[in-house]
Amino acid sequence: MKTEKYLVKEGQKVNLNDFSTKRDEELDRDEVENILMPNNISRMANLQEKLYAENTSSLLIVFQAMDAAGKDSAIKHVMKGFNPQGVHVAAFKVPSSEENDHDYLWRIHRQIPRRGEIGIFNRSHYEDVLVSKVHNLISISQLPPELQTEDIFEVRYRQIRDYERYLFENGTVILKFFLHLSKDEQRERLLERIENSQKNWKFSAADIHERQYWGTYMKAYETMLENTSTEIAPWYILPADSKWYTRYLISEILLEKLIEMNPQFPEFPEEKREEMEKCRKLLLKEKYS
Amino acid sequence: MKTEKYLVKEGQKVNLNDFSTKRDEELDRDEVENILMPNNISRMANLQEKLYAENTSSLLIVFQAMDAAGKDSAIKHVMKGFNPQGVHVAAFKVPSSEENDHDYLWRIHRQIPRRGEIGIFNRSHYEDVLVSKVHNLISISQLPPELQTEDIFEVRYRQIRDYERYLFENGTVILKFFLHLSKDEQRERLLERIENSQKNWKFSAADIHERQYWGTYMKAYETMLENTSTEIAPWYILPADSKWYTRYLISEILLEKLIEMNPQFPEFPEEKREEMEKCRKLLLKEKYS
Repeated sequence: MKTEKYLVKEGQKVNLNDFSTKRDEELDRDEVENILMPNNISRMANLQEKLYAENTSSLLIVFQAMDAAGKDSAIKHVMKGFNPQGVHVAAFKVPSSEENDHDYLWRIHRQIPRRGEIGIFNRSHYEDVLVSKVHNLISISQLPPELQTEDIFEVRYRQIRDYERYLFENGTVILKFFLHLSKDEQRERLLERIENSQKNWKFSAADIHERQYWGTYMKAYETMLENTSTEIAPWYILPADSKWYTRYLISEILLEKLIEMNPQFPEFPEEKREEMEKCRKLLLKEKYS
Repeated sequence: MKTEKYLVKEGQKVNLNDFSTKRDEELDRDEVENILMPNNISRMANLQEKLYAENTSSLLIVFQAMDAAGKDSAIKHVMKGFNPQGVHVAAFKVPSSEENDHDYLWRIHRQIPRRGEIGIFNRSHYEDVLVSKVHNLISISQLPPELQTEDIFEVRYRQIRDYERYLFENGTVILKFFLHLSKDEQRERLLERIENSQKNWKFSAADIHERQYWGTYMKAYETMLENTSTEIAPWYILPADSKWYTRYLISEILLEKLIEMNPQFPEFPEEKREEMEKCRKLLLKEKYS
């Protein structure tokens, strides 16, 4: 499957109207869910085991989207084949007072995956150039007033580019997904949360309140995508109106990346082989108790 | 007192032989210890209280030096006037296995002072361009082999410059002190640790072992100082053969910086004044129980 058309190239201008929210390849849903997805999930699980054993690189997957775009369900359905021991999921909500007492990357850096791990960010440092921008949160933050400059978001884009390059240079490979949902489909899904009692727990009046800022959010996303999609930490804009299609796309891109990373079981050091042979003999000599 | 001569200007070439390890101003030790230092300590304490109340900026002080140069005693004697509630000291030792499983700034970022705090680093991320360089620790690290490039320390200097600029732009003011000790004075102090039973606990055979790398360390320090002293996060090279003199210098530079930061008690919001008056009346109306 061609995933490149969803990639935002470094320096590319982004107009979200040019990106469809609908699935745009003729795929059979049954085939995807019963054959293609399970196959991808199993291949990813094999590669994850090697990544974990190799214990040098890590993979960080960032999810950003409007509410109800399917971040949680994508994490649930795409990552379920992974061994949880090697997966670290971090969900970033409204910052705590301890978090507000620090720079905005402080809470992010604490959650960066360990070597060998796959890290998943459900929201991320990108909130600090999205919700912070749309609701002008900088002016009510604890940032010293003289640092609340007019170009603060330009500054933050640069800080984020530097930070992600730093992570990459230290062994963390980064993929970023924007789940691109239409405003109409969001309406349907929010209504579903109200009307289906099993989904009531996901309902929040705040989500409905945020809908009135839709246009402002889209502008903030566009500028963010243009300024922070880089060769080493690219953004993908994925159509999100069909959940099964979005998930399949994510699995395709993840699999591609894991294949490219090409993790290997570490070679067993020759000098330890003799020791291992001794251990075999010891074990074989033991009597059954 | 003129402290500028100890400052490494951005881009300045550094030859440590040009910097004396001996105190170079005629100062009366009694006057320093009994009048000037207590005076500085008390003024710093006043400014610290305001910094803490203001709760927007923080001050990070980094100490680097060869063993026995007086880092611990400087922290003890210069910072003792501070309210410990607003001070955070982090000592960075040999990395743990959890720390080695992350990028080298991971453990650093966790210890960055909160807004309003004074943070003190006893050693720091600079170990990753000093001991790592002198003992070629990169080659035995978990960093993926393809990232162990020949220019790795140049890359790290750039990463550190970016990182410290990021911290500065987010409200952390940074001062960095290299305590410049002579090899002869180190010998005296290490002997003292062996011969004075009350100092035996500080003795480590590893320190004596490290002495043979003195020249290599000085070269690593020089390149590091040249590449990471910036306008917003400057290095000071302080003569360290006389502890009382070093401490006084540190207090002078800290005080200057705190004065420049000019922290202020937050203004009490006018709209809360009425509420405060009500509370006064409530308290006054209470009967003694």
